[in-house]
Amino acid sequence: MAWNFFLSLFDYKTEKYVVAKNKRVGVLYRLIQLSVLGYIIGWVFVSKKGYQETDEAIQSSVITKLKGVSVTNTTESGVDVWGPEDYVIPPQGEAVLFVVTNFLETPNQKLGYCAESPKVLDGLCNNNDDCEKGKIVVAGNGLMSGRCLKKDSNSIGSCEIYGWCPVERKFKPQGPLLANAENFTIYIKNFIFFPKFAFSKSNVLETNDDTYLKKCRYDKELHPYCPIFRLGHITRRAGYNFQDMATFGGSIGILIEWDCDLDKGYSNCSPVYHFTRLDTSVSNKTIALGFNFRHTRYFRNTDGERYRSLFKVYGIRFTILVHGKAGRFSVVPTAINFAAGLALMGAGAFLCDMVLLYLMKKGNSYRQWKFEVPR
Amino acid sequence: MAWNFFLSLFDYKTEKYVVAKNKRVGVLYRLIQLSVLGYIIGWVFVSKKGYQETDEAIQSSVITKLKGVSVTNTTESGVDVWGPEDYVIPPQGEAVLFVVTNFLETPNQKLGYCAESPKVLDGLCNNNDDCEKGKIVVAGNGLMSGRCLKKDSNSIGSCEIYGWCPVERKFKPQGPLLANAENFTIYIKNFIFFPKFAFSKSNVLETNDDTYLKKCRYDKELHPYCPIFRLGHITRRAGYNFQDMATFGGSIGILIEWDCDLDKGYSNCSPVYHFTRLDTSVSNKTIALGFNFRHTRYFRNTDGERYRSLFKVYGIRFTILVHGKAGRFSVVPTAINFAAGLALMGAGAFLCDMVLLYLMKKGNSYRQWKFEVPR
Amino acid sequence: MAWNFFLSLFDYKTEKYVVAKNKRVGVLYRLIQLSVLGYIIGWVFVSKKGYQETDEAIQSSVITKLKGVSVTNTTESGVDVWGPEDYVIPPQGEAVLFVVTNFLETPNQKLGYCAESPKVLDGLCNNNDDCEKGKIVVAGNGLMSGRCLKKDSNSIGSCEIYGWCPVERKFKPQGPLLANAENFTIYIKNFIFFPKFAFSKSNVLETNDDTYLKKCRYDKELHPYCPIFRLGHITRRAGYNFQDMATFGGSIGILIEWDCDLDKGYSNCSPVYHFTRLDTSVSNKTIALGFNFRHTRYFRNTDGERYRSLFKVYGIRFTILVHGKAGRFSVVPTAINFAAGLALMGAGAFLCDMVLLYLMKKGNSYRQWKFEVPR
Repeated sequence: MAWNFFLSLFDYKTEKYVVAKNKRVGVLYRLIQLSVLGYIIGWVFVSKKGYQETDEAIQSSVITKLKGVSVTNTTESGVDVWGPEDYVIPPQGEAVLFVVTNFLETPNQKLGYCAESPKVLDGLCNNNDDCEKGKIVVAGNGLMSGRCLKKDSNSIGSCEIYGWCPVERKFKPQGPLLANAENFTIYIKNFIFFPKFAFSKSNVLETNDDTYLKKCRYDKELHPYCPIFRLGHITRRAGYNFQDMATFGGSIGILIEWDCDLDKGYSNCSPVYHFTRLDTSVSNKTIALGFNFRHTRYFRNTDGERYRSLFKVYGIRFTILVHGKAGRFSVVPTAINFAAGLALMGAGAFLCDMVLLYLMKKGNSYRQWKFEVPR
Repeated sequence: MAWNFFLSLFDYKTEKYVVAKNKRVGVLYRLIQLSVLGYIIGWVFVSKKGYQETDEAIQSSVITKLKGVSVTNTTESGVDVWGPEDYVIPPQGEAVLFVVTNFLETPNQKLGYCAESPKVLDGLCNNNDDCEKGKIVVAGNGLMSGRCLKKDSNSIGSCEIYGWCPVERKFKPQGPLLANAENFTIYIKNFIFFPKFAFSKSNVLETNDDTYLKKCRYDKELHPYCPIFRLGHITRRAGYNFQDMATFGGSIGILIEWDCDLDKGYSNCSPVYHFTRLDTSVSNKTIALGFNFRHTRYFRNTDGERYRSLFKVYGIRFTILVHGKAGRFSVVPTAINFAAGLALMGAGAFLCDMVLLYLMKKGNSYRQWKFEVPR
Repeated sequence: MAWNFFLSLFDYKTEKYVVAKNKRVGVLYRLIQLSVLGYIIGWVFVSKKGYQETDEAIQSSVITKLKGVSVTNTTESGVDVWGPEDYVIPPQGEAVLFVVTNFLETPNQKLGYCAESPKVLDGLCNNNDDCEKGKIVVAGNGLMSGRCLKKDSNSIGSCEIYGWCPVERKFKPQGPLLANAENFTIYIKNFIFFPKFAFSKSNVLETNDDTYLKKCRYDKELHPYCPIFRLGHITRRAGYNFQDMATFGGSIGILIEWDCDLDKGYSNCSPVYHFTRLDTSVSNKTIALGFNFRHTRYFRNTDGERYRSLFKVYGIRFTILVHGKAGRFSVVPTAINFAAGLALMGAGAFLCDMVLLYLMKKGNSYRQWKFEVPR
């Protein structure tokens, strides 16, 4: 019945146009009706699920954990074993984490006097006058002592500074030292909650087999609920080679998308993972390449004197974002969208009047008819 | 006058339907008008405050600070005193913070050779062939030396590795070591700013009594502007027992909601706190329980050799979210909503025409009348 | 032609009103039409770019790096040199970072017995009964030993505690110790990506001159693509004096806004920087002033005994937010907005009918004419 009624919308006004001896506009009106109807049914209701009320205020919690070890051997540090507690910064399983893939250690720095790094422009000098005593080197590593240190009289030297010595040496990475970081695995635990529907779910398989998470790897078909990824797998999915990124570092975004149709039930609400590299711009000739920073470890010797190891670490930062929305049938939106549809038809009819008035020669006769005055 | 005018909307078209000898549709039209009117006044204007322009782009800053001490006594670490600088990770008063409630220390780890942990599947072996020299144990702690260490010939052994030794022992927490973490207090400083209205406020009482924040505790009625909470209070409000969460850890969300009606003045804009546990899913049979991670402290002995303490810490992560919107009367939205109301009435009238055309036997006569042609 | 058609909208119905012998309403209707037209063209299309489809789901990545050194000289710590690796917390170039501008070090703390700080209310005592043995001092630093330490018999003393001794002394900062933090520079690397248009860009100049970033400073006109700022510049732009903020600390928001009209091409999409102080509320009499926290460095002496340095650091937290939206011409929104405009005109006509019916004496004659019945 409601359907028949809906159909009857088509008769409305149409014959008016016919009467008005203008088939074309009749057809136009039909077309408008059809397009409106198509829009309402096809787009609003089927595609956009206009019959559902939705909740986009997703509450989410992300916990990450990395596994894997890497062994490095450098002249400065000797043999070293890197575990997650070392190469994940910060270590506390946040949604944003940095994985060290390359580093330069400057061990046994002590407070004292030494030459500023030649990389620091403001630290270059020709004579002592360029190194004003007590002045701090702009973007440098310490306080000028007033002396200019140079190999020979006619070379460009660099000011002597008071700071943590020796200063970090020049370093252009040749390749990642933690080469096998590619095989590290990241375990992404994600819990979501839709307040409006009191619906909560996690991206981890609900099983009692404790060893499941020790063996499984994510696979879209086989293991959609095993959120454990090889880092190399992630970068490849993002369209980049891990080794290339590992040398200078970079930034990768992991987007977890929950699009839940609660009318279809609990099991049909499952996460989809997207991977994109975040630190790229269309034109590749950029000087803003890579991602690195410095951190320190402080020690004291037997006399209580401080010394430290300065680490310049290169690596990949992973940022995990969670988007999501849930929908469930509700009367209110259905009604509103239906009404909006009707109103749209009204607009259609209105439009046709316009066309009638404007387009056709017989406009006048129609005008007469439409606005005939009481005689 | 505007009101009278509004009322007059009711006369419009009604008599047409009467004229058209169809009371039922007249009634239907009245109903539609009433419902539309009710919708506009009741819903749009009263409930949704359609007369206000709103600002949802809230700018917020959260600063947190914990207080409280806990004393632990374990075989590995001996007696230890934990202050906020130790159990809050990261310590810098972020909106996301982790509070240690349980831990396992593995002190005095040195780089060297020892047996891989039996928990690591890939580290188990029957003979040396299972431990390929120089291969890294998947999800393990080091580099295989090639030897398989086993208690007796017919037991399952584990490969010898080069790494930080001794490796962490098996650990199933029995109960939280920082039991009185329940009594720690968290001070949540929140500042908000609504750019559109240049309105700013904080959730802390504006007083000159410096000792206020040292004595007060949050209470919805007595101290709504004392943002200091007992951790145990928070978990209980979230519906969980602190001690249960403390053993394996978990994740709690603290939502601060600012819903400000600026027409009602400064004092009526006050924060509301909501507490929810974030790491739960409807079905409780999950293997993704708890929240823990590892961090280290590095030391050097007199010979400059490195050794370290490895901490596996369990705890509760608190995530503080700030939502908010402010509204103030403005002409534009009022006008728009009013116009929308009128349009809706138009749609109502349109709908009635439909009904007339379809429902009633006398449809034809009505058609004639409605679309009579110029003779 | 489309334009002529659009114009013809004006004729519609107007003459009806004229016919109905009511110029006033004719004029009213004209006004409504004009305002609607003005609204559609001026507001919807020109100002709000209603002809564009927009993407507001901006994906962004922020990397920060500070440069600058400061030298401090205090009785506790002696001479110390602070580099970014020390005064930036956390050091890993996040979008939220804390810069130390002032600090108090309590070096060589050992686990032992000492007097609780007099700042802790719960630690004050008149006699030993006030210090219940084994009880933890609320908001204090340790475990009560049961003794009350006091200078002389009739003064107020403080309980002896077991904890990290000596406890931190009272500290009201006189001025920032890292005074020249004002001259530190922050380099904000921001990459954005609009998924819908696959458009990506960065806020760093695309050049091959590697030294550019070492020399340039941000300048709205000269160097809009040099995202390197003096901290003092930022606070001033936010409306505050750096030295004032530096003493007790504070919180500053840096908003990067990308409003990209892709119809105008790649180069017209450039970032705009806004700076606001986040931790202020309209009334300045607040006790929630400043921003500080404590962190520690742990050491072990030759006997393996632990001792530590406790740092109470004051500073400024910078929070970098990225907003943005991009728009590009698209048929769909253009059509929808155009249709909406027509519908609005319909509503206008409807409104005029209302007015006709209500306002004028001649209402009845009009009624007759409008709803004349088939004779």
